Amino acid sequence: MKLYNWQFAPNCRRVRMFVIEKGLNLPAIEEVIGSGLRLLPQYIEKWPHAVVPMLELDDGTRIAEAAAICRYFEDEHPEPRLMGRTSVEKGVIEMWERRGYDELLVGTGEVFRNSHPEFVDRGLAGTKDPVPQIPGLIERGKGRVRRHYAKLEDQLRDNRYVAGKAFSFADITTLCAMDFAIAVDMPIPKTSPATQRWYEEISSRPSAKQSL
Amino acid sequence: MKLYNWQFAPNCRRVRMFVIEKGLNLPAIEEVIGSGLRLLPQYIEKWPHAVVPMLELDDGTRIAEAAAICRYFEDEHPEPRLMGRTSVEKGVIEMWERRGYDELLVGTGEVFRNSHPEFVDRGLAGTKDPVPQIPGLIERGKGRVRRHYAKLEDQLRDNRYVAGKAFSFADITTLCAMDFAIAVDMPIPKTSPATQRWYEEISSRPSAKQSL
Repeated sequence: MKLYNWQFAPNCRRVRMFVIEKGLNLPAIEEVIGSGLRLLPQYIEKWPHAVVPMLELDDGTRIAEAAAICRYFEDEHPEPRLMGRTSVEKGVIEMWERRGYDELLVGTGEVFRNSHPEFVDRGLAGTKDPVPQIPGLIERGKGRVRRHYAKLEDQLRDNRYVAGKAFSFADITTLCAMDFAIAVDMPIPKTSPATQRWYEEISSRPSAKQSL
Repeated sequence: MKLYNWQFAPNCRRVRMFVIEKGLNLPAIEEVIGSGLRLLPQYIEKWPHAVVPMLELDDGTRIAEAAAICRYFEDEHPEPRLMGRTSVEKGVIEMWERRGYDELLVGTGEVFRNSHPEFVDRGLAGTKDPVPQIPGLIERGKGRVRRHYAKLEDQLRDNRYVAGKAFSFADITTLCAMDFAIAVDMPIPKTSPATQRWYEEISSRPSAKQSL
């Protein structure tokens, strides 16, 4: 089994952190980023979807999308449960996980990709066609992040973890997205003490450090 | 149990179609769309995340995000399996399901929300702040849809269903997104006979018709 990886991509870190939380060793890792933060041409030739992470199983099956890869590991190695035990837990974890992705991670990605000079004409991942940067998305992305921070603060005021009482995949996605937001100059607001408390707790987990 | 619904929203249809495929009766449904395609104020007061669909369980638990709601039903009523039986099936279905959402549904949403006069200042769902339309997203959204149509054609040339041999949640998300794309004037390309064949087959399922 091999994980095609870009060490600094938040989506790749989601998978690495998930695997470490499961108590597994990381699969063999192949780095696929070349100069100018571009995917190596031989990787795109192998995987025309042109995204990381991608997990290649020993029988040749390929699974991409961080959450789909994590789903595979959750089923192969059910304990510790990171996607919920009961139906309700599974639903609530997935709700917060998808929100963390759609709002915090995609919002930060909008800010990053539409402002970084290396991403001129690469406004979206996974495409060989040029996709021009859209400056209006910088402000819009900041708004998405700001609104998600507010939602998180409401949630974490009453809950130890993002999806409730137990640590879950929702915490993993949220932490990886938040570290990305912080790196792109969108720190946790001073008005968010519960989020700060959560961030310190989750960041201190061995999986958070080892996945960096 | 009650499902808060906007009959014409593709995300709501994903849930309705999923429930019907499970052979279940739809939960009690409350329509929450008022004039100007706006969520009713009493719904936003109840659910400040301000999105549909949202499933409210009898104990008051609320689950939003179409995929999270479907996850709940998959676990409560495992048969017929729509999210996979083996680890690999689960991973591959989720990969295609997330792509169908991120590329075809979000791409079409970008075209729709940034061009429709009723969505001035509502460029994103789930926010009370005004989010201005960004005209550049119309073209970018069309590109996302076009690229996803090309990927689907490659996949459906060799597979009966979107995620392989079995009908799954990936087909549901893809069909609901595709009907949205078609309504927004992005029909299946003439160069995509396999996709057309798949579309006719999936559209003729009772769940596809009953969920409209």
